[in-house]
This record gives sequence, structure tokens and C-alpha cells, in this order.
Amino acid sequence: IFGLVLEVSNFFKKAWHLGHNEPRKVIHCLKVGMALTVVSLFYYTRPLYEGVGGNAMWAIMTVVVVFENTVGATICKSLNRICGTFLAGSLAIGIHWIASQSGDKFEPFITGISVFLLASAATFSRFIPSVKARFDYGAMIFILTFSLVTVSGYRVDRLMELANNRVYTITIGTALCTMITTFICPIWAGEELYMLITRNMDKLAYSLDGCVGEYFNGSGTSADGDKESDKKLLGYKCVLTSKATEEVMANFARWEPAHGRFNFRHPWKQYLKIGASMRACAYCIDALDCCVNSENEVPELIKKHMSNISLKVSSESSRVIKELARTMKTMKKSSTIDFLVGDMNSAILELQEDLKSLPNSFINLQPLQEAECPEKKNIGAVALMDIIPLVTLASLLIEIAARIEGMVDA
Amino acid sequence: IFGLVLEVSNFFKKAWHLGHNEPRKVIHCLKVGMALTVVSLFYYTRPLYEGVGGNAMWAIMTVVVVFENTVGATICKSLNRICGTFLAGSLAIGIHWIASQSGDKFEPFITGISVFLLASAATFSRFIPSVKARFDYGAMIFILTFSLVTVSGYRVDRLMELANNRVYTITIGTALCTMITTFICPIWAGEELYMLITRNMDKLAYSLDGCVGEYFNGSGTSADGDKESDKKLLGYKCVLTSKATEEVMANFARWEPAHGRFNFRHPWKQYLKIGASMRACAYCIDALDCCVNSENEVPELIKKHMSNISLKVSSESSRVIKELARTMKTMKKSSTIDFLVGDMNSAILELQEDLKSLPNSFINLQPLQEAECPEKKNIGAVALMDIIPLVTLASLLIEIAARIEGMVDA
Repeated sequence: IFGLVLEVSNFFKKAWHLGHNEPRKVIHCLKVGMALTVVSLFYYTRPLYEGVGGNAMWAIMTVVVVFENTVGATICKSLNRICGTFLAGSLAIGIHWIASQSGDKFEPFITGISVFLLASAATFSRFIPSVKARFDYGAMIFILTFSLVTVSGYRVDRLMELANNRVYTITIGTALCTMITTFICPIWAGEELYMLITRNMDKLAYSLDGCVGEYFNGSGTSADGDKESDKKLLGYKCVLTSKATEEVMANFARWEPAHGRFNFRHPWKQYLKIGASMRACAYCIDALDCCVNSENEVPELIKKHMSNISLKVSSESSRVIKELARTMKTMKKSSTIDFLVGDMNSAILELQEDLKSLPNSFINLQPLQEAECPEKKNIGAVALMDIIPLVTLASLLIEIAARIEGMVDA
Repeated sequence: IFGLVLEVSNFFKKAWHLGHNEPRKVIHCLKVGMALTVVSLFYYTRPLYEGVGGNAMWAIMTVVVVFENTVGATICKSLNRICGTFLAGSLAIGIHWIASQSGDKFEPFITGISVFLLASAATFSRFIPSVKARFDYGAMIFILTFSLVTVSGYRVDRLMELANNRVYTITIGTALCTMITTFICPIWAGEELYMLITRNMDKLAYSLDGCVGEYFNGSGTSADGDKESDKKLLGYKCVLTSKATEEVMANFARWEPAHGRFNFRHPWKQYLKIGASMRACAYCIDALDCCVNSENEVPELIKKHMSNISLKVSSESSRVIKELARTMKTMKKSSTIDFLVGDMNSAILELQEDLKSLPNSFINLQPLQEAECPEKKNIGAVALMDIIPLVTLASLLIEIAARIEGMVDA
């Protein structure tokens, strides 16, 4: 029993921690509670309740199902729900009319077959990638409403009224949700995406810097500071795993109205491209990290010889990434980025020259040099490889920066 | 107008293609249609309809919402729905009782505040990772049912009957769904996961083989065959992006009863570990591929010198992976895997020796050799790096194989 109490208290401690770290999530929860309470008012005020024919239940349901964390997600779901309901409702009424014309005997068969066919077709459409990305929820609502209305048609005579009430209540529910998410402490999917990308960029720069720096400066630091920096070094892992989040965000961001510094037709897809380039960078850093942490011993002499230029390459590269991050933050085309890319490229050329001159200066300890060559050369090579996606990223970002410039008129 | 027609016909062509390639998806759609039709029968047969007090609507709703592609997902959602409804229902009745005891004046306030508090708390719990992974849907249903029942309590007097009917209809709906998914052409999440992992393993082996092979054998093949093989070479990209799918599958697989060759407490988590190791391998292959496709020119002579041993390393490595895949397929501990790992390791040692001897045999063209060194050495180094996760993978899989052996008694 004591173990159970401990576990429960641990759970609450964790929950408190989560709430403390991300107050926006707590605010979101309070918003949900508020929306629900407001919608419950329908039950308590008689004129409103009678107005929707006692179907206030559907409004509550809509609020619970539609209310999401970000504005984009809420709007996307609301639109899906309204369109799905409306389409399915009209279709169902049409089919009900046909069925009622064909006599009592055939009615169950016609409705049954139509439910079977349309449910299958709508389910199938959810597997098509382009539909799934945007209208997955809408298709589900379509099936739901269609079968409900068609089947109820058999029992409830005032079908039109029922359908009308459903549309009213759902509209009320979605409107309320949209208003609350948009006006009370809104969390924009677009802004989240934007912050995720810039944060990841910073992490990437830090990882690249730290990884090479740690290798050349040795592990002479204290274990305590090491743990802290180790944690930061692994920042690139976040970049590796953020793909799914980015895609979801970009998908929702498209539904959001203009807000803050983002226009309505902000090029969200460009963010996905940047994310992909960043991931390619992160793969390279992973390989680099792997090779830095391998057990191969390298003679101090050569290490020293190479350290300056390698550090220079990595710091130039990470400076480019940081500058890109700053460009993203200010959303203006940076004037220094071209210089920085130039600096980086010249540093790489220098590194290549150095690699060429290596065998000449160490001709007397050649076997030794070769033994460590895979290790050393690899850093050069990986740094080189690192450059390819980096340059892609840079050119891509310059293009975006130009676009944003054109849009923001700044 | 012609453009529109073309687009629509294209859409249908794509849909047909999808259905043709994956007949199981079509079967799933038909299953959904069937479940809905069966549940609609409730409306047409009078005794059944009266039995649930005219609330057959909820059964339809349950079927639409709960029916998922895989057995695990359906069972998981069903259990979530039943538990959420039951818990919320009993809590709501309790609160309704308290509210009704406290007199007409306070009733709306008590219910309103309780809805606000519990909805906020339940929404917050959905942010906690451990709850989100398993009970996300259950928490949503909890909010929904709780607010519906609490609020209806104000208007509907026969609250107990209402709650009872809801539980009945939901049970009927979920039972129907579970039966149909399990007994008619079931799609098991566990089996999907297992197939995904073995398929990815094969792809990985092929990519590794092909990537190195293409580099050393040159691009002398015809453009037609090249495209085909290029497509296969990029198989490792699938491994890079399959993380999210694997996690979802493993999550659902835990809910499934024993089926086929899988016991109830099959170690699904081990699959995730294998997936992670495979992803580490894939990062390395990505770096390798990057470096093979770079523009650096390498003299033919050295290329030839290295080609034998490099090909040997890559083929030994890929043979290990393929053997692992076969081990997975048969679920028996392979007797040859230890030998293969040994072979691979000796091939690596050979490669290292070769790298050491390189400068001696090419001492006269040293500047040239150094110029291409980053390229060449890198292959050695990447192959080396490749080995680290590979060996991890191998040892991990041997352990799993042993476990599975213990479980399957084979």
C-alpha cells in the first residue's frame, strides 16, 4: 500500500512539474473547462434550450471533440465537422426521400444498402494520403452523421427539424470553440512551428560546436559541467525526431488566419524544407559524434596540428547556422549571411589544404599517421559533407528570407 | 471544365491503384460498412429498439468512432471508451445526487463548477506522456460523458435509466466492433510491426550492399536498370522515417490477445529497440551515401586496390543483417549468426590492415593519394562506424532470439 501511495504522489509530482514548466498547457485546460461551462448554460436557460429543440447535447459534444491545443487544429476540425455534417445531412435527407417514395417494404433495404456503400466509400477515402492529411476527421463525421440521419429517418418523422437542429447546435459549438481559442491566450500552430524550427537550429549549431570542441579540448572539465554540456550536445537528437511534429504543425498552420507577423498565405511549406535540410545536417552530426566517441586513439601531436583548423571550420559552420536562426527570428534578409557562408567555405578550403600537407610534415611517423587517418580524415570529410546540406540550407533560407521580405514589406 | 474532369479522373485512378495494391484496406472498408449495417438493424427490429430505450443512436456512434484498422487499435479504443464512460457516468451520478440534495438554488452552480474543474483536470491529464500514450481517448470520453450526464441531470429526471442505456449501447457497439475486427480478416498490429521491422531490415541490407557496390563497380549499367536499383538503394530512407509508425504499432500490439505465433506477453518493446538500432545504422548509411555521391574524383588505381576489401566488408555486414532478418522471420536462434559476425569482424580487421598498408604501396603518388584520402578513408571509417551499431544490433537480437526461443518453446 505504501508503494502505491508513493507511486501516486510521484505521478502528481510529475504532473505538477509539467504544469509548472508549461503554463500554456494549464491555460489550455482552463479554456476547455470554460468552454464546456459556457455551453452547459444552454441547459440552464430555458429560451436557449427550447430554441434548439432540446438538442443542446450536440453542442457539448462538439466542444469536447473539437477543442484542440492550437488555433489551427481547432479551426481545421471545426470546418471539417461543419462540412461533413452538412454534406452528410443533405445526402441522407435525399436518400430518405427516395426511400420513402419507394414504399414501406423497400425502405429498410434501400437505407441499409446506402449506409453500407457510403460508409465503405468514406472509410476508403480516409486511406488516400491527400484526403487523410486534411479531411480525415471530416470523413469520419460524414459517416457518423449520414448513418445517424438515414437510420433515424425510419423512426423520427420530423427529420428536417432534427437535421436543422443538429446543424444549429454544431455551429454554435464550433463558433464558441473558435472564439475561445482565438481570443483567450491563443496558441498558434504557426508560431509553434516557427519557434520549433529556430530552436532546433540553435541546438544544431551548439551540437556541432560542442562536439568538435569537446574532441579537441579533451575531457579535462569536471564531471558536473560535463553532464550539463553532454545534455546540450545531444540537442541534435531532437532535430532527428521532430519530423512528425513539424508536419502536423505545418498542416494546421495553413488553416490559421493572419496573426502577429504571419500573413494568411505564409509559405509554411518552406519550413518543412528547412526542417528536412536540418535533419540531413543532424544525420551528419550523428556520424561525426559517433566517430568522435569511438575508441580509436590519436597521437596528441597530430591532434594539435589539426585542432585549429577543425575548430575553425566547425565554428564557422555553426556561426552560419546561428545567423540563419537569427535571420528567421527577425524575418529579414541578413546582410552578413553571404559573408559568413564565404568565410565558411574558405575555412573548408583551408582544411583541405591542411589535409594535403599532412603527410609531408609527418613523413617520419607515417605508419602512425595512417593508423589514425581514418579518424582524422573522417572529421575533415564529415565536415565537408556537413557543408553540402548546409549550403543548400543557406541558399534555401536566403530565398525564403527574400520571400518573407517581399511579403512583410520590411 | 476539362481540367476538372481530368483531375477527378486522376483522383479515381489513384484511388483504384491504392485499392488494387492493398486489398486489405478495401476489406477494412467493407468491414466498417458491415458493422454499421448490422448496428442499424437495431432501428428496424422493434424489440431490440425498445430494449435500449430508443438510444440505439449511441451504438451507431460507438461503431463509427471505435472501428480502427488494426485489432489492437480497436480493442484499445473500446476499452478506453467503456472505462471512460463507466467512470464518468458513476462520478456524474454521484455529483448529481449531491447537487440535488443541496436544493434548487445551488444545483446549477455545483454542476457548473464540477464540470469546469473535472474537464480541466482531465484535459491536463492528456498532456502527461504516460497517460497520453494509452488513455488519451479514454480521457476525452470521460470529459464527454461526464459533462453530458451531469448537465442532462438538470433536465432529465430518469437519470439512472439514461446512464444505464448509454452503458448498454456502448457495450453492444464495442462488442460488435471487436468481434468483427477479430474474426473477419483480422489485421493485427503486432504482425504489421513485425513485418515492418523485417522488411526494413532487408531494405537496409540491400541499401548497404548496393551503395558500396555501385560505387566500386561504376555506373556502367543501363539507365533503365539504374532507376530500378536507385529506388531500391533509397530503401534506407524508409528506415529513417518509420519511427512514429513503429511506436504506434507497438503501443496497440500490447492490447492484442495471443494470435498466430505471438503470445500475449510478446516482448514488443524489443522491437522498438531493434528499430532504434536500425535507425542508427541508417544514419551511417546516409552519411556513406552522401560521401559516395560527392563529386570528389578518385584515381582508378586506388579505387581498384580498395574495392575488393570494401566490397567484402559491406557484403559481410549485409549478410549479417539478412541473417538477422531471417532469424526474425523464423523466430529461432540462428546457429550461423555467430559465425557471420565473426566473418564480418575479420573482414573489418583486414580493411584496417589494408588502410595501413596503403601509403606504402602508393608512396610515389602521395599528394594524389592524400587528395582522395578523405574520400577513401571515409569509406573505411564509415564502415567501421557502421559496425558499432551493427554489433549492438546483433547482440541485441541474439538476446531476443533467445527470449523468443524460451517463449515459443521451439
